[in-house]
Amino acid sequence: MPLRYPYLSFLLYLLLVLTSISLLLYSSHMPTTNRQWLLANRPTALITPDVLQLTDSPIPAISEGQALAKVKYLSIDPTMRIWMTDFPQYMPPVQIGEVMRAFGLAEVIESRHPNFKKGDKVSGLTGLQEYCVLAGEGKGAFQKLPSIPFLSDTNFLNLLGINGLTAYFGLLEVGQPKSGETLVVSAAAGATGSIVGQLGKIHGCRVVGIAGTDEKCKWIKDDLGFDAAINYKHPDWKAQLTAATPKGVDINFENVGGEIMHAVLDRMNLHGRVVVCGLISGYTTHDPNLVGFGQLIIKRLRVEGFLIMDYIPKFMDAAQKLGMWKMTGKLKSRETIVKGLEKAPEAINMLFRGDNTGKLIVEL
Amino acid sequence: MPLRYPYLSFLLYLLLVLTSISLLLYSSHMPTTNRQWLLANRPTALITPDVLQLTDSPIPAISEGQALAKVKYLSIDPTMRIWMTDFPQYMPPVQIGEVMRAFGLAEVIESRHPNFKKGDKVSGLTGLQEYCVLAGEGKGAFQKLPSIPFLSDTNFLNLLGINGLTAYFGLLEVGQPKSGETLVVSAAAGATGSIVGQLGKIHGCRVVGIAGTDEKCKWIKDDLGFDAAINYKHPDWKAQLTAATPKGVDINFENVGGEIMHAVLDRMNLHGRVVVCGLISGYTTHDPNLVGFGQLIIKRLRVEGFLIMDYIPKFMDAAQKLGMWKMTGKLKSRETIVKGLEKAPEAINMLFRGDNTGKLIVEL
Repeated sequence: MPLRYPYLSFLLYLLLVLTSISLLLYSSHMPTTNRQWLLANRPTALITPDVLQLTDSPIPAISEGQALAKVKYLSIDPTMRIWMTDFPQYMPPVQIGEVMRAFGLAEVIESRHPNFKKGDKVSGLTGLQEYCVLAGEGKGAFQKLPSIPFLSDTNFLNLLGINGLTAYFGLLEVGQPKSGETLVVSAAAGATGSIVGQLGKIHGCRVVGIAGTDEKCKWIKDDLGFDAAINYKHPDWKAQLTAATPKGVDINFENVGGEIMHAVLDRMNLHGRVVVCGLISGYTTHDPNLVGFGQLIIKRLRVEGFLIMDYIPKFMDAAQKLGMWKMTGKLKSRETIVKGLEKAPEAINMLFRGDNTGKLIVEL
Repeated sequence: MPLRYPYLSFLLYLLLVLTSISLLLYSSHMPTTNRQWLLANRPTALITPDVLQLTDSPIPAISEGQALAKVKYLSIDPTMRIWMTDFPQYMPPVQIGEVMRAFGLAEVIESRHPNFKKGDKVSGLTGLQEYCVLAGEGKGAFQKLPSIPFLSDTNFLNLLGINGLTAYFGLLEVGQPKSGETLVVSAAAGATGSIVGQLGKIHGCRVVGIAGTDEKCKWIKDDLGFDAAINYKHPDWKAQLTAATPKGVDINFENVGGEIMHAVLDRMNLHGRVVVCGLISGYTTHDPNLVGFGQLIIKRLRVEGFLIMDYIPKFMDAAQKLGMWKMTGKLKSRETIVKGLEKAPEAINMLFRGDNTGKLIVEL
């Protein structure tokens, strides 16, 4: 029994040591401050140092139904530049003073949320910060990452994340590739473009990528199996594009816009498809044409050029309906008549000045 | 019997008179020269006097299987300006020295063609000239006009011609209007636009027209029944457009392009449809953006903006396929990793300078 006291002392001592160690370990895991990038000013071109501001803020205490996660990886996407501006877009713009929005991959370090436990890896809109709070289960909530052989964590921000899915649905659902067709993809060495081109090969297309360095071109051609890769910074890149698309272009997966887009449009075949996925060349400029074109993406517009010649087999049916509407007073028409063959050239100009109302006709 | 000689004289005299009258009548119908507008030089902007040249040439003698027709009306269309240029288009450009191409309405005056007889009215590509030869029966051949009550001859160049059919198929097949939707049409007082708007009303749409004079606006609103008409030459026309489209725009029937198109795109609703029928604002300029956009029409391209959010229900299926392709070596991905949260703003700029290959990720 006399032994018990020293033994108890030892136990107390051990307890003290263990508690200290635990507290030490706990405090080393327990963050005290959260570094965050806040949106301080809206950018006018590239991100200048005044646009984002790095601040320390306390980690929020989590309540029931929440979990705290430590951010491991942040996905850097062109759309972040759009979120920084305040024009109407597909999500609310980031407000001045808010943490900059970003996709990321994080690990749960403390949980009072029924779906997450400590150690879980999640992906979602973490924001440009070190710690984020997971809450709720609705749209935009965090996804727990499965552990899958051959797939690294960062694959979930890339191949199986926003970029892989964008490539998949953009090419397969909008572009509708058919075996033997020619696909051109711009920003081809980027996250989305590099997957688009490979999906094109899987679906039997001839794939031509456009990128901005020889090293990128080498990667997409030699490693990813693109049929051709064109560096748009080479002076003769448009001639290279023509040579690389001997049968024209059936699908343009557009990530860039501007001059690159127009060069590819010039190579398009009849009834080609243009998947307007991104217009990165315009995000840091204020080209009004690109701003307008950007609405195609934000509003998911379908734009289709058309020529009446494609509908010749249906002309009779249409003419009957038009004639019926005219006879029943539902359709009216008006003609602006210019008399004399000698007036024909000037009549053509009237169209471009808007001098006519209704149909412009020369009467002989 | 003595009476017979004076009688014969009288008959001979009568024959002479009748022959003279016939010859006189015949020669008044029989053309000697055909005035034609030839393409002399390609235009750079509007049609200047050196572009088209008026010349007299002999009427061609028709052979078996041909008919000669006198042109009564010539249709003046924006596309003529495109035919004058030599960039690749949907029909061969008019060559220098050729009669300028034009649609027209003509009356047959002499026929050795089995399908046409003297007096028939026909429509087709008459060219900018007084007389044209009808031959053959294939695509592009002349159509005999039926005589239909309520329809004037010129209606066949307008309501039942290229413009009516363009409006019909462009709006109904490409635009797919639904009752209650809002349709905006530009060049709304033009031949095609004025019919588009009325077809929109027939199909239950709210119809807003954009035109360039108050008189045109009055016509489309008061006579044609458009719900609103906006004169784009008024300084506050964009505010008027916003006010006239309180529920946004579901269909833009685009005839003009440029600033007008972009203002309407800004008002579009999600999954709206843009029927790119014409881009007249760009036909006399050399805006490279418009030239590229013009390919949409010439090639009948379908352009569709898209956002990955619309495909959320199909994500699981897609991720399985992507993962499988990755595991079987058919898909590769690459990441450019930037270390440190403090590098995040500069990482965003890397995207716009193309400094990344593959996915750009910030590692914390």
